[in-house]
Amino acid sequence: MRVLLLAVIFHALLVWPASAQPSQPLPLMPVPASVQLGTGQLPIGPTFSVAIAGYSDPQLRRAVGRFLEQLGRQTGIPPINLKVVDGPGATLLIHADHASKSVQELGEDESYSLEVSSVGAKLDAATSLGILRGLETFLQLVQTTPEGFTAPAVTIQDRPRFPWRGLMIDVGRHFIPLDVLKRNLDGMAAVKLNVFHWHLSENQGFRVESKKFPKLQEMGSDSFYYTQDEVRDLIAYAHDRGIRVVPEFDMPGHSTAWFVGYPELASAPGPYEIERKWGVFDPAMDPTEERTYKFLDQFIGEMALLFPDKYFHIGGDEVNGKQWDANPKIQAFMRTHELKNNQDLQAYFNERVQKIVSKHGKIMIGWDEILRPELPPDVVVQSWRGQASLAGAAKQGFRGILSSGYYLDLMWPASRHYGVDPMSDAAATLSLEEQQRILGGEACMWSEYVSPENIDSRIWPRLAAIAERLWSAPDVKDVNSMYQRMEATSHRLDWLGLTHNSGYEPMLRRITGSNGISALRTLADVVEPVKDYTREDTAPVEPTSLLPLNRLIDAAHPESATARQFTDMVDGLLSGKTGPGTKEQIKVLLLRWRDNQASLQPQVNQSFLLKEILPLSQNLTAVASAGLQALDYIDRGARAPDDWVTAQVSLLQQAQQQQAQLLLMIAPPVQKLVEASAKR
Amino acid sequence: MRVLLLAVIFHALLVWPASAQPSQPLPLMPVPASVQLGTGQLPIGPTFSVAIAGYSDPQLRRAVGRFLEQLGRQTGIPPINLKVVDGPGATLLIHADHASKSVQELGEDESYSLEVSSVGAKLDAATSLGILRGLETFLQLVQTTPEGFTAPAVTIQDRPRFPWRGLMIDVGRHFIPLDVLKRNLDGMAAVKLNVFHWHLSENQGFRVESKKFPKLQEMGSDSFYYTQDEVRDLIAYAHDRGIRVVPEFDMPGHSTAWFVGYPELASAPGPYEIERKWGVFDPAMDPTEERTYKFLDQFIGEMALLFPDKYFHIGGDEVNGKQWDANPKIQAFMRTHELKNNQDLQAYFNERVQKIVSKHGKIMIGWDEILRPELPPDVVVQSWRGQASLAGAAKQGFRGILSSGYYLDLMWPASRHYGVDPMSDAAATLSLEEQQRILGGEACMWSEYVSPENIDSRIWPRLAAIAERLWSAPDVKDVNSMYQRMEATSHRLDWLGLTHNSGYEPMLRRITGSNGISALRTLADVVEPVKDYTREDTAPVEPTSLLPLNRLIDAAHPESATARQFTDMVDGLLSGKTGPGTKEQIKVLLLRWRDNQASLQPQVNQSFLLKEILPLSQNLTAVASAGLQALDYIDRGARAPDDWVTAQVSLLQQAQQQQAQLLLMIAPPVQKLVEASAKR
Repeated sequence: MRVLLLAVIFHALLVWPASAQPSQPLPLMPVPASVQLGTGQLPIGPTFSVAIAGYSDPQLRRAVGRFLEQLGRQTGIPPINLKVVDGPGATLLIHADHASKSVQELGEDESYSLEVSSVGAKLDAATSLGILRGLETFLQLVQTTPEGFTAPAVTIQDRPRFPWRGLMIDVGRHFIPLDVLKRNLDGMAAVKLNVFHWHLSENQGFRVESKKFPKLQEMGSDSFYYTQDEVRDLIAYAHDRGIRVVPEFDMPGHSTAWFVGYPELASAPGPYEIERKWGVFDPAMDPTEERTYKFLDQFIGEMALLFPDKYFHIGGDEVNGKQWDANPKIQAFMRTHELKNNQDLQAYFNERVQKIVSKHGKIMIGWDEILRPELPPDVVVQSWRGQASLAGAAKQGFRGILSSGYYLDLMWPASRHYGVDPMSDAAATLSLEEQQRILGGEACMWSEYVSPENIDSRIWPRLAAIAERLWSAPDVKDVNSMYQRMEATSHRLDWLGLTHNSGYEPMLRRITGSNGISALRTLADVVEPVKDYTREDTAPVEPTSLLPLNRLIDAAHPESATARQFTDMVDGLLSGKTGPGTKEQIKVLLLRWRDNQASLQPQVNQSFLLKEILPLSQNLTAVASAGLQALDYIDRGARAPDDWVTAQVSLLQQAQQQQAQLLLMIAPPVQKLVEASAKR
Repeated sequence: MRVLLLAVIFHALLVWPASAQPSQPLPLMPVPASVQLGTGQLPIGPTFSVAIAGYSDPQLRRAVGRFLEQLGRQTGIPPINLKVVDGPGATLLIHADHASKSVQELGEDESYSLEVSSVGAKLDAATSLGILRGLETFLQLVQTTPEGFTAPAVTIQDRPRFPWRGLMIDVGRHFIPLDVLKRNLDGMAAVKLNVFHWHLSENQGFRVESKKFPKLQEMGSDSFYYTQDEVRDLIAYAHDRGIRVVPEFDMPGHSTAWFVGYPELASAPGPYEIERKWGVFDPAMDPTEERTYKFLDQFIGEMALLFPDKYFHIGGDEVNGKQWDANPKIQAFMRTHELKNNQDLQAYFNERVQKIVSKHGKIMIGWDEILRPELPPDVVVQSWRGQASLAGAAKQGFRGILSSGYYLDLMWPASRHYGVDPMSDAAATLSLEEQQRILGGEACMWSEYVSPENIDSRIWPRLAAIAERLWSAPDVKDVNSMYQRMEATSHRLDWLGLTHNSGYEPMLRRITGSNGISALRTLADVVEPVKDYTREDTAPVEPTSLLPLNRLIDAAHPESATARQFTDMVDGLLSGKTGPGTKEQIKVLLLRWRDNQASLQPQVNQSFLLKEILPLSQNLTAVASAGLQALDYIDRGARAPDDWVTAQVSLLQQAQQQQAQLLLMIAPPVQKLVEASAKR
């Protein structure tokens, strides 16, 4: 059953009682459907205990065990104290009406209610899946206070807005080991995401063991693949956390790695090698040969048994058609079957594959390109093209999920992802029935520039903002509140072993080749990797899967919190809306940035990884100097001379160009200062 | 065969060629027996490969796999590039003459030679165990340089000074999960330690599954114990890393947890409960009952099969004898057997246990107290009492290892551990034959105040200094060089997943209850936990195993690097041996410390964990102010007034008292400044 929440949703002003911590929002992320603050707080101490009163099964008990472990990590309370007890004396009383499904289903009930008073807490849900969600909310409520660890008295009613809230990880281009996936599943559960979309095959690697076609992994993976036991282990791990696992095997394109072992599947004779470069390549499966479908029937049959989820992703994106164009036999087939173009040929392929997928008991899902009216109506479209594409599909009767706007590899700020609503733009004009076909969305972590070392920092904490967009009411969109809660969430995720914070300094130390990283860190804190696909266009050497990801661009956070806060300060200063300390704070920062290059310079000659950063570091000094002068004009109430302003603006424009594929994020706010100094 | 290196050992001046990085020692730790620098350097790039030319087995191939993984982590080179190849074209050519033992033995050959030139490297060893040690040395040579990652051309001949180089971890008082032990085994292997001494039973917990006596773990562990499968897994993990695993089951004292399930073993009727407090307790096994030995025979038989190492530790320390004194039956037994006192009774017990241990094919090891001339000469003594005790044992023909001076829980600085040599003091006067009975030493991590969260920071990086003491020549004792290399080692260990660095900030965030930790960190960076057993004496509430370890004392590093560096600067300034910038650096630090309390104060009222820190923070301000004034007198060449000096010295003495069980480590160097200002 679908649980789209289309009615008006009430949600309280999420702030602490004024007496306690004025203006600080409750650190709940995603924001629940309804929050009512009470009075008082529940102490969380060494006598904390949980009782399971209603339905119970091993999955639920494991969830409670993990909950207690995480509570122990957050508070430092030793695990021998945190107990599951019988009876109503427990601090937290859990009651589920019944089990969740043994294979988690789309639209299963995830709702829960949580009531915390100063003497205890009660968590109720229809299913154990709802209990999982509620336990995460409880953990978010636990705070350090003057009185000890406590949770505020509160009544929460909660349920998700969309039933499909996912993260896709591309393990084809860079292999991501199981333990890294697992800690990211922990993070997903913490922000109530419920689908892990596992992009398992690419031109650069085929990542699953097939027993029927072992050359797939033996020749197509560089020995980096998951065994079937490991796949089962990951699925069980995800299921325990209320997360479905949807496998994707991209076809007929993006499939070079298949052809290394099985060249007969391709539309041109081999031999093939694992692709090392990035991009869209020519090799594609041959849709005209029956042996292709025979192979896929057996392969999909094997995988359909391995992956229990009802949905099976066939990719279907980015076929350039060159192999088809060049193959006379394929051209003849197209004429015989009256297929006008390659799109028609791919549609023919998809129809055949859909029947195979369906025969093995699964519902097909694929990227925008698969969409054709002749497909059965249960097919789901994943849109990298946007709401219009999604709305079009919905109008044709197809269900869809949005990924356009949620590509984590594009290095956008969280606020930009946060602003993307699956139900906005073209989708807003749909009928109620059509709207219900929009199931939710998925963040995508394409992995050209992602390694096991830095993947966490590309996913987190920005994914929390997307998770909130997909769970919370559409009118939850205060960006400042989001950032405040996202930062708290980010550091809560540290307790789960995610490395988006802890991995930063080791990567900087590798770059300097020493423990002295304070100057590099000062610079790194205010830069961001270039956006969208600029990294391709500006690459100093052609990027491949063999190149180390150890440059500053690989260590730098996708979004600079320091630059964002600095920009807010400058905006506040120029609009006159901040206190008297702001100008001084801005000055302290600018002074530090101005003087940073002097500290970094001696290190630059010691490390090959620092060389490319020198111009960026010089820009930081120049930009900060301009900012300091502008601030001085503003301070003195003097109007900056025109020629000085012109020169500075030109310098600042220059400094906004990428250097070493990094953007200096304080240049735009400093430009505002310079422009303001010209107006006095 | 023993590999005590008693001959004179040559070792080069371990510095980079002056042209490259003047005065920076090669970051090798422990220092090898012989190092000869060549010219040039070997590039370590994406084409790096290894060939195994000599003896090969799965253990060696796994070691090479781990080596490549770690090289990948250090450099960022993707794992698909780092390959094992055939033939002599490899970057690193490995040659072992033969296998190491399937169960690692005391004194097995660990020697190796490593030759690095600008075109390749060669690692030779008699056994695969020597290869393991050499691979760690190679990893330490890889550095970031202007030309890329490189290893300097060098010829190394290496072998350990002592054959027994261990770390004991007490998992009884606080349970330490398997994954935490494993990452510490990785760290041990990185600094060439070779014995993990697993202290498995305590009054506070019995931590191994016994199938013969299941009530041991069922009733004595709070459900926190290792299954036999887990034990085997850990032993295999250690063996892969060239580490022996010696189990300890402490008896007849320290055994309350046994008695919860089996009260009939005790010398007084039960019932017993798991002990929650720390200290020496009355319960002890009844040495007069045959059923005790029957139980131990079966139990030791079971454990002797589970743990393959030749040595079996029976503890034997700290029996207070009260249960024996109070039991008339035991008193009667002593009279009948002419046992004059409790020491005699324990000796009787030990002799009986030794026969059981020996019957099951093992050699007994125990703490000082077990030593009695009537024991067979193969028994090994572990000394917590010191070199005199060890020398005494050696004179009686017993072999021994030193732990006195290596207790990590006493929170000593690394330099103090580093200064303790098993062969010094009384041991230095032994004959050559007697000296050979001194096998080495073991660092001890007693766990009253250690949790899975902070244990790494108690062990590392100080253990690296002890590891060097036990591996390197006795004349390797330059403390400055040690600290420089220990810091580099500390951050290299980050790549293994050890949390001594990465765990610090999350613990500080928990204390402030927010992400704002810069003020707390400034304070935390210059304090150290109280030393020796002062934590017991100064505890605000009676410490137990149920209390959270989440205070600043639990997060603070055992040794403050900042304070050490500050002390060095002050010493340099006062002796006139430093450059002109030092005074300015000292002043910058003192200013930051003086002003820190103003930043911390607003947070103090927000968190119960910050309350106790307020006086410490106020002391920091007062001490820094005194330092600034003293510096001003020195600067001006003026003599500080006597009454001012008297007042400041009194203040500084006060500030050197513990506050919140922490010591303000900048107080002593500031006192030097004040005293110097009085002398102008």
